[in-house]
Amino acid sequence: MNFDKIIITSLEEDMPGGDITTISTVPENAVAEGAFKAKADGVICGLEIAKRSFELCGGGIEITFMVKEGDFVKTGDVIATVKGNARTILMAERTALNLMQRASGIATATRKACEAVKGTSTRITDTRKTMPGLRPLDKYAVRVGGAVNHRFGLSDGVLIKDNHIAAAGSITKAVTSAKAYAPHTLKIEVETENMEQVAEALAAGADIIMLDNMTCAQMKEAVEFIGGRAVTEASGNMGERDLREVAESGVDLISIGALTHSVKALDISLKFSIRV
Amino acid sequence: MNFDKIIITSLEEDMPGGDITTISTVPENAVAEGAFKAKADGVICGLEIAKRSFELCGGGIEITFMVKEGDFVKTGDVIATVKGNARTILMAERTALNLMQRASGIATATRKACEAVKGTSTRITDTRKTMPGLRPLDKYAVRVGGAVNHRFGLSDGVLIKDNHIAAAGSITKAVTSAKAYAPHTLKIEVETENMEQVAEALAAGADIIMLDNMTCAQMKEAVEFIGGRAVTEASGNMGERDLREVAESGVDLISIGALTHSVKALDISLKFSIRV
Amino acid sequence: MNFDKIIITSLEEDMPGGDITTISTVPENAVAEGAFKAKADGVICGLEIAKRSFELCGGGIEITFMVKEGDFVKTGDVIATVKGNARTILMAERTALNLMQRASGIATATRKACEAVKGTSTRITDTRKTMPGLRPLDKYAVRVGGAVNHRFGLSDGVLIKDNHIAAAGSITKAVTSAKAYAPHTLKIEVETENMEQVAEALAAGADIIMLDNMTCAQMKEAVEFIGGRAVTEASGNMGERDLREVAESGVDLISIGALTHSVKALDISLKFSIRV
Amino acid sequence: MNFDKIIITSLEEDMPGGDITTISTVPENAVAEGAFKAKADGVICGLEIAKRSFELCGGGIEITFMVKEGDFVKTGDVIATVKGNARTILMAERTALNLMQRASGIATATRKACEAVKGTSTRITDTRKTMPGLRPLDKYAVRVGGAVNHRFGLSDGVLIKDNHIAAAGSITKAVTSAKAYAPHTLKIEVETENMEQVAEALAAGADIIMLDNMTCAQMKEAVEFIGGRAVTEASGNMGERDLREVAESGVDLISIGALTHSVKALDISLKFSIRV
Amino acid sequence: MNFDKIIITSLEEDMPGGDITTISTVPENAVAEGAFKAKADGVICGLEIAKRSFELCGGGIEITFMVKEGDFVKTGDVIATVKGNARTILMAERTALNLMQRASGIATATRKACEAVKGTSTRITDTRKTMPGLRPLDKYAVRVGGAVNHRFGLSDGVLIKDNHIAAAGSITKAVTSAKAYAPHTLKIEVETENMEQVAEALAAGADIIMLDNMTCAQMKEAVEFIGGRAVTEASGNMGERDLREVAESGVDLISIGALTHSVKALDISLKFSIRV
Amino acid sequence: MNFDKIIITSLEEDMPGGDITTISTVPENAVAEGAFKAKADGVICGLEIAKRSFELCGGGIEITFMVKEGDFVKTGDVIATVKGNARTILMAERTALNLMQRASGIATATRKACEAVKGTSTRITDTRKTMPGLRPLDKYAVRVGGAVNHRFGLSDGVLIKDNHIAAAGSITKAVTSAKAYAPHTLKIEVETENMEQVAEALAAGADIIMLDNMTCAQMKEAVEFIGGRAVTEASGNMGERDLREVAESGVDLISIGALTHSVKALDISLKFSIRV
Repeated sequence: MNFDKIIITSLEEDMPGGDITTISTVPENAVAEGAFKAKADGVICGLEIAKRSFELCGGGIEITFMVKEGDFVKTGDVIATVKGNARTILMAERTALNLMQRASGIATATRKACEAVKGTSTRITDTRKTMPGLRPLDKYAVRVGGAVNHRFGLSDGVLIKDNHIAAAGSITKAVTSAKAYAPHTLKIEVETENMEQVAEALAAGADIIMLDNMTCAQMKEAVEFIGGRAVTEASGNMGERDLREVAESGVDLISIGALTHSVKALDISLKFSIRV
Repeated sequence: MNFDKIIITSLEEDMPGGDITTISTVPENAVAEGAFKAKADGVICGLEIAKRSFELCGGGIEITFMVKEGDFVKTGDVIATVKGNARTILMAERTALNLMQRASGIATATRKACEAVKGTSTRITDTRKTMPGLRPLDKYAVRVGGAVNHRFGLSDGVLIKDNHIAAAGSITKAVTSAKAYAPHTLKIEVETENMEQVAEALAAGADIIMLDNMTCAQMKEAVEFIGGRAVTEASGNMGERDLREVAESGVDLISIGALTHSVKALDISLKFSIRV
Repeated sequence: MNFDKIIITSLEEDMPGGDITTISTVPENAVAEGAFKAKADGVICGLEIAKRSFELCGGGIEITFMVKEGDFVKTGDVIATVKGNARTILMAERTALNLMQRASGIATATRKACEAVKGTSTRITDTRKTMPGLRPLDKYAVRVGGAVNHRFGLSDGVLIKDNHIAAAGSITKAVTSAKAYAPHTLKIEVETENMEQVAEALAAGADIIMLDNMTCAQMKEAVEFIGGRAVTEASGNMGERDLREVAESGVDLISIGALTHSVKALDISLKFSIRV
Repeated sequence: MNFDKIIITSLEEDMPGGDITTISTVPENAVAEGAFKAKADGVICGLEIAKRSFELCGGGIEITFMVKEGDFVKTGDVIATVKGNARTILMAERTALNLMQRASGIATATRKACEAVKGTSTRITDTRKTMPGLRPLDKYAVRVGGAVNHRFGLSDGVLIKDNHIAAAGSITKAVTSAKAYAPHTLKIEVETENMEQVAEALAAGADIIMLDNMTCAQMKEAVEFIGGRAVTEASGNMGERDLREVAESGVDLISIGALTHSVKALDISLKFSIRV
Repeated sequence: MNFDKIIITSLEEDMPGGDITTISTVPENAVAEGAFKAKADGVICGLEIAKRSFELCGGGIEITFMVKEGDFVKTGDVIATVKGNARTILMAERTALNLMQRASGIATATRKACEAVKGTSTRITDTRKTMPGLRPLDKYAVRVGGAVNHRFGLSDGVLIKDNHIAAAGSITKAVTSAKAYAPHTLKIEVETENMEQVAEALAAGADIIMLDNMTCAQMKEAVEFIGGRAVTEASGNMGERDLREVAESGVDLISIGALTHSVKALDISLKFSIRV
Repeated sequence: MNFDKIIITSLEEDMPGGDITTISTVPENAVAEGAFKAKADGVICGLEIAKRSFELCGGGIEITFMVKEGDFVKTGDVIATVKGNARTILMAERTALNLMQRASGIATATRKACEAVKGTSTRITDTRKTMPGLRPLDKYAVRVGGAVNHRFGLSDGVLIKDNHIAAAGSITKAVTSAKAYAPHTLKIEVETENMEQVAEALAAGADIIMLDNMTCAQMKEAVEFIGGRAVTEASGNMGERDLREVAESGVDLISIGALTHSVKALDISLKFSIRV
């Protein structure tokens, strides 16, 4: 995965005219040495992004990872040590931290969701509720957190919702139209809200049936009815549900928008000292 | 403020090859009619962005705002009604919601922080802890929430931190260098951690003194010592502090990274029906 | 589908410094009136693109379509009439023609392939053998021609080829790894070259089995063996094969790289007269 | 010549979210070794582009050219050998092949046209019938094929066509206007359809006279009449004419749109084995 | 000519985060009314650019031109009147002025140079000494000033300088190589410094002979020697020469780098009053 | 400071299709050796930009600086020597020179202005009168020349002009509104035209008071009245004023638009010889 575009956007946005403070106070050849430290417990994501932030900001920084991508760290753990041109470190610091903190925040929340369903056959997945330009990063962090990605966007997945059904006339008609039009490499997913819709979607040949805003009892009934003839996905404010209970209904996947739409950044600091 | 670049990034990212589901199930001329509704209490931000999302996705959508930018809404309130081409609404829906939900989430958290210090002379401000490409949006939402923006980035503000001080040799030297180099339109801010540094920063001519990670007692002492000779800004994990207590120390500003680095999206739905 | 980026690229590439000939010989307010005519038989694709080329080049052109997107035209048929600012027509003419001729060329070749398999249950599909920046256009033309698209690119489809199999250790291992990693919305396709591989792919749970460079007899055997348990796709220089014969082997799809890698532009002219 | 923009467009278009298949099946450090082979006879063009595709996709690939740019290869000839990171080769493979196959296809068709007029004083040239964003590549391939380029676009050449003449009032008026306006570094070319126009264009001071859609006899008459006082260019569906016969009419150049608007890709394969 | 890219670059560069002063002091619906006035004598260039600056900044501005593009104005003359949204006028004002002042400065200097050679057969032309991204604007202003453009850049003109000659071996060899390689639509220009080189260039078939840094006597001798067999262009610090005297040597063109590399902006003001 | 975007814009604008002359006359491996020389007295600015121009154009050039950024050179002085691939030097030459000549021209004019006020406490500053895309370069050159930058653009500084005052109702109201809205890191500047306005601005709490188009006597009176309670800035056609006299009025800063809107390029040549 290449995140250069995101990193460059960040560096350019942050300093269209250079870093006034740093240029005026830090000599061109000053050297800094320090470390990224965790200030909270969580899953680290974005090590290479941090490294690349320094490279794209001028380079000359040696960075040594003390943990691996996806490792769980505890408050106080050293994540990586850095050494090199002080100006570069000061200028790229916020970009590196902003990206690593968000990615680690997503990975941490994802890991927690995965832990909640551990031992069941249910997997966690994400949604399109991401921020513009950041979707590749957010989806990557979800994978590092241990979950699986849902479709990337509208062009690479078929998800027939209530409005599509209304427009097409029926679930059957919508599925038939989508199958005729969509690449044969894509599965057809249908959003359902009750057993009647589940039955129709299944009969129409849906590959994936989304169970939207159902109780666990309803989901269990649906899963049993489907009996493996389609993949099942629980959806609808899953960020506020008891994931274990949902998983025990037997659904194959639980999709959680909150993983990416309401990210709590993992607290990470970069402390260093400068030698002029 | 013009957020077209952000909206276009979102639309292009979401559908490089069109919306497969919508094209295959919704007739080209189908008309949809519906409404954005609040599913949680909060401050609405991004009305024009939602409107513009539909325009940039093909247009032909009539949108009527039922609330004003910055209004506080309650669960169930109708935010805006929309009517027009069903395909456009379906394709721009997620972009409109993703942006409005984030902006409203930031505005809501900001409003809450402002309420906490209401009646004091303290103002809330933000930081550079934003996501790449979204800084203009995030900073706008902070303003709609009732707070004031800090510097936009490294090129339009001077903030002398511990490392700059170390590199320059002393607070006095750093302030002197910065004053000589920075545009005369910018104030000079110095980060301090104790009274000794506060005194030196003040003597060196700092316009703004950041009180970093201090107790309320320490901040009070600093504010009294400074006595209006410089602006004071409380900083350091303020998202987890009792803001009222901090404000009562007399600081002029409290900067809160969490306003933008850990956003909880405001829950908003877009429900509509389609007429073929 | 929005092809503005392609059209703008074309206009900017063609005249970074304006159209010297037109500016020097055609008065600013001269009006032109004329028509796009087919100079060969084929399927028309790109009507809206032609229209949009004039709009993005300055506008003020009235264009009336005499045929519909996807119609089959014969040499001499009028495709559309145009009327408006002569300079705009002259400057956008080549862009409009280049794009419409390529798109129509692809649609024509695709239609021909579809006709060849008419009456069978086999569908024609495309590949990733397209030109940089033009993939959305090429894939659109394939759809207009009557075929179905294959995956858009490497990020929205799984196609396990010989090298992936070699790297993973076996077809079974490769399929298992891909299933664990890929979005659940994507089907898993495996490239096979003989019956042994077909059997392993099927057993491993492949959703789609590509039959690469097989004889029709081999394909027939494979299709019968698979017995509807997976989708089958014939591949390998299909542009030079007897498509009818291939289809009669019972494969579900035939993918043809030549549809887009070796396009014969449909000959279309734009003739008009100018009134100063 | 630098084709980085084209290569990057291709890589980004092909994998906005990474190569799902390769990431899930090929270990990060797997090494591949293989070769590009010709699967048809033709002129090789794009060696450096193939090399650069791997570099821009992550690098770490050693590529050894076995032939030189512009060499004629036969089916089975090894064009280049590659060795290095297997993931990079798999991800950049299609980009490298798509570009090299198109460029080689153009060079091959161009070489064939040049061969047809060998021994005469006639040269082959191209047109503006290229695809958006690819014109630099297409024109480069034409040069590698042995022909000479026509103007790049509307801003760097003057070509007065029938409509310009109609708008200006006469050939003489059009040439006079163009000479007064155009950079003095550009020759003035006029499109003619009969001897009368040829005579007027010559008298008006045209530097180049295009003989459009004429019979060989007409062209011969025109060339003789012009007697070296202007450059002559045969034009009009030249892709379907007997080029030798046209050349023998004595024209200086033959411009062929089909060289770039209807490209038959040269078949090239990249076969390799992976060592985990 | 379309200068949108230049205008957008200017607006975005000037206010990545909005116009703080205007937003905070001018009500959203305030209306402004005023006029562009010349504060010096000169040639007006860029009227449509000024108009477009307001449009691209939000629009809603009525602008009425009181002079025509290329008109000579005197101090105090009203160039255009504007009326509309006050915020838009305030935000686009500097962009409109910066561009119109530079363009008018170039047009004014060009007009002056043209006046100096009036009555002779000599024309004034420009060079590649322009600023990045502004070449189309600068060259346009030169045309509005009454001169003719030289080649746009390295890709659309052939100018053989001393180093090219040294590398090729001789003027004759360089001209021969260039003629074989360059599009036949381009004239071949050779830079010469003395009569010997002039003679060789002419014999080699140069279409244009640049007389570099010669005295007027030398140029006269060269022009007479050439006798109309090639176009002649005087070059070399022409911004500091007596243009009349140079023209009287009989050269066809005088190229002046200073027209664009050392622009004196034409002083123009935009004064308006605001009605809240 | 990173000027890659400016350099790349320049290289791409200058040769979208390569350097025809150089490719056809200079062998691929020819080596050139030469030097940048001053052809006028002035301050050198842009050494790294020149170096970077060669790097971004293909590299392989060794450049040795004989002077330091900001040094004053005299006609004939060698600025830098270059050695390396002849084609690269020929292709990047104009970009390097155009940028270095403009930057040096700005630095030279700035230095001259600074010299004029030497010994006083007045500093020279710039304005927003720069060209699109070049503002970072222009502002950098001003700093190298010895002056200090004014605000970069509308988003990072507050400058209340007559129209803002009119719209807000009064200076006091405008200052109050701006203080409430603008980041606390920015100083508030007010443009004044007479003593009455000076007094109101001071009373309203302006941090900087611009004295616009005043006589030296008026400025002296204003400076004395203000008595250090605000920073003072002289403005209004300062490029045509006696700077020494203005400085002696006691103003803190003099802002000069002409430094960047009317740049006289410093004459620099690049002479080299080629070894094939």
